[in-house]
Amino acid sequence: MVFQNDPDILDYFRAAGADVDGDTVRFERGMCRSIIQASAPRQYTQHARNPENTVEIGGGNTVLSPVYGPAFVHDLDRGRRYATLEDFQKLNRIHQMIPHLHHAGGIVCEPVDVPVNKRHLDMMLSHITYGDRALFGALIGSERAEDSVAMVKILFGEDFVENNTVLYGVSNTNAPLVMDDAMSGSLKVYARHNQAVACTPWMITGAMSPCTEAGTLAQLLAEALATCALTQLIRPGAPCLMGSFATAMSMQSGAPTFGMPEAAKTVLAAGQLARRLGVPFHTVGSLTSSKVPDSQAQQEGTMSLIMAVLAGANFINHATGWLEGGLCTGYEKTIIDADLCGKLIRFCEGLDLSQNAQALDAIAEVGPGQHFLASQHTLENFETAFYRSDVSDANSFEQWQSEGSLETAQRANRIWKQLLADYQQPPLDPAILEALTEYVERRKASMPDRDY
Amino acid sequence: MVFQNDPDILDYFRAAGADVDGDTVRFERGMCRSIIQASAPRQYTQHARNPENTVEIGGGNTVLSPVYGPAFVHDLDRGRRYATLEDFQKLNRIHQMIPHLHHAGGIVCEPVDVPVNKRHLDMMLSHITYGDRALFGALIGSERAEDSVAMVKILFGEDFVENNTVLYGVSNTNAPLVMDDAMSGSLKVYARHNQAVACTPWMITGAMSPCTEAGTLAQLLAEALATCALTQLIRPGAPCLMGSFATAMSMQSGAPTFGMPEAAKTVLAAGQLARRLGVPFHTVGSLTSSKVPDSQAQQEGTMSLIMAVLAGANFINHATGWLEGGLCTGYEKTIIDADLCGKLIRFCEGLDLSQNAQALDAIAEVGPGQHFLASQHTLENFETAFYRSDVSDANSFEQWQSEGSLETAQRANRIWKQLLADYQQPPLDPAILEALTEYVERRKASMPDRDY
Repeated sequence: MVFQNDPDILDYFRAAGADVDGDTVRFERGMCRSIIQASAPRQYTQHARNPENTVEIGGGNTVLSPVYGPAFVHDLDRGRRYATLEDFQKLNRIHQMIPHLHHAGGIVCEPVDVPVNKRHLDMMLSHITYGDRALFGALIGSERAEDSVAMVKILFGEDFVENNTVLYGVSNTNAPLVMDDAMSGSLKVYARHNQAVACTPWMITGAMSPCTEAGTLAQLLAEALATCALTQLIRPGAPCLMGSFATAMSMQSGAPTFGMPEAAKTVLAAGQLARRLGVPFHTVGSLTSSKVPDSQAQQEGTMSLIMAVLAGANFINHATGWLEGGLCTGYEKTIIDADLCGKLIRFCEGLDLSQNAQALDAIAEVGPGQHFLASQHTLENFETAFYRSDVSDANSFEQWQSEGSLETAQRANRIWKQLLADYQQPPLDPAILEALTEYVERRKASMPDRDY
Repeated sequence: MVFQNDPDILDYFRAAGADVDGDTVRFERGMCRSIIQASAPRQYTQHARNPENTVEIGGGNTVLSPVYGPAFVHDLDRGRRYATLEDFQKLNRIHQMIPHLHHAGGIVCEPVDVPVNKRHLDMMLSHITYGDRALFGALIGSERAEDSVAMVKILFGEDFVENNTVLYGVSNTNAPLVMDDAMSGSLKVYARHNQAVACTPWMITGAMSPCTEAGTLAQLLAEALATCALTQLIRPGAPCLMGSFATAMSMQSGAPTFGMPEAAKTVLAAGQLARRLGVPFHTVGSLTSSKVPDSQAQQEGTMSLIMAVLAGANFINHATGWLEGGLCTGYEKTIIDADLCGKLIRFCEGLDLSQNAQALDAIAEVGPGQHFLASQHTLENFETAFYRSDVSDANSFEQWQSEGSLETAQRANRIWKQLLADYQQPPLDPAILEALTEYVERRKASMPDRDY
């Protein structure tokens, strides 16, 4: 594994007994695994500023987080366009209103109207202002990661941050077998401060890894082992996750594809490897290459999110909103995906086998050929019996037609607008908000604008 | 369990030692299970007229069959309308061209321009004329079932039919705990002739069974046990399947809902019950209450079909084309669902862990920071590496836009038209076709038209 432009990292590995040759690090078989298993927690708590939104990451828990990273946004009214800080803030408010999401997410879209080197400041301020869920830290480079840590110290207090985990970082490899200093830089900062890092090989299979699932898994495991081990060398006991983002490609056009069977098999196996390793498992959710919230988007996204859930993922990034191979955040897609999140949360509750659920008395009471609608059992259970979708239309054709023959995306358009209309800002100590705003302004004033 | 208007059935049960009181039959605990386990095959072969399309039903096999029963059809050009025999024949031709379907299906749409009591004759003739896959028999009543048997005897020969299974029947209960003579009538005919019957309780939970999954499963198992046992009393060794069709309802509007988490949990458990019983498992596929092939249709349908596959279903009815709670067959929906069938077939092939698939030499050869596109391993494997979708668009936004910004359903519209254009009728002995046509004409002439 090559670690580019980061001598610090090479020192850590050298001290641990790895074979460091230039920027290439080689490990004895089992070395990374034993480093990880000696200290990495199997489960940890990520605190949110609202304690009700604090999440447990690991074990039987699955934390759902919205889309990360798109430069564009799409909605039915305005089509596809570059994202702005206003979009970012609107998406923060919409996400905060969706009960099926458990995490604030990170770059819910790129605010391209803000200089690249200052966006992370405005984004973190927006997250803290408009939501009260657990947060991502900035991913690119140690300087931005330090800003993330400084801001959550203002929010939670310095001691609390050093002794608890309040940030979620993702560190991607440049597959195959490379990590650059932009990624190792943020990884170092988060691990040193006891914040979590999801060590996530990012692979378009066939280009960045072998075109076979088993080969991709072998490489993915190697990259995840090396980078998870790094977090433990920096600070034993700092939370790390084994991550997996492996998707297929079209061997005709070279375009990445999503929601395909090869990715499904890979994520299920990667989840097993993470459990065998003994760290929480991070992966990705409702992925699609569709440009619009249509059938393809939902067939690919549903396949992809179901498989991530069945893989036992402890954290699912991009659970809502992703379009166009991750280049675009869809407003309607967000609402439609959130409905699937709600269904899958219900699904994961499992099968209730209590006496009440078995309902044998009800079956005897109702008897052959009658109906259960008015039975005592139904009256006692109907309010919680079924998941209620606010996106699906189960009405008759005639009723649906009389209500305007709306397609799903049109209903979703109304829903996100209603969520924005109903949104209420969660309370935040004005002194904290003032201190955060001052920090952001001071940091922005300290740097010239840059587009990298 | 009540068996209505069918004294034959009561005689079978009485002779087996059940407690028959009027039309109500009660069983000692374990009685039905032991009758079934004494003779029902765990797996059987259903022959198609083209031996290449003969299917194994049971074990690790999953047979995918198109939508069954809708009175309406929908396509983008003409919208929603009553189905006709012309639609039926077009759908037969489209299905025959879809490699991801394994079975001809049955009522792929209701030809409402043919009198109700004569449709089964035209439908069977259409299936045999336009396709060469395994067939459904007519479901309603002994007379129509006898016609199905008579027609396959013309096709396969009398002896072959008596000694082999060439028809697939479904016998639904009228939940709770009733089977009427329309269903027991066809069940009797198929069992007597050694043809297969999928004994399938049909339940909208909360109305026709308890509103809890465990209660629904208890009732479903009871109904399936009684009706599977009946097939074995009629002819020990005749193939029977345990079926499951249980879907949730909206407790607000009473409308059935599809692709919901409660149905997912129920089908996974029902599959386990069928394997415990030791007969093949039948269930249902890509269900939705959406009126059009949109996001809702694919989110619900994908959830539903994936769960059926993961439930280990040996036969999945309605794997393609279902819209509007089963009232409508969608032409575009058929194509979009078929793509999911293709993905799931690929998924079910499992993980290749051969040396070639592990690709360790390729990882070593390519090395850090390089790419696999031109590696020897990729060159040797790329042609079969990835599932190829002809429905999904993985191109860039700009390319997609330059090609007309088509939504999935619009691409699917082009695809089904192309399949019809490319369709070639499978060869059939003209003497057999003539005999079948003569049979249909004679039978139709022998009855007045009826609308029931």
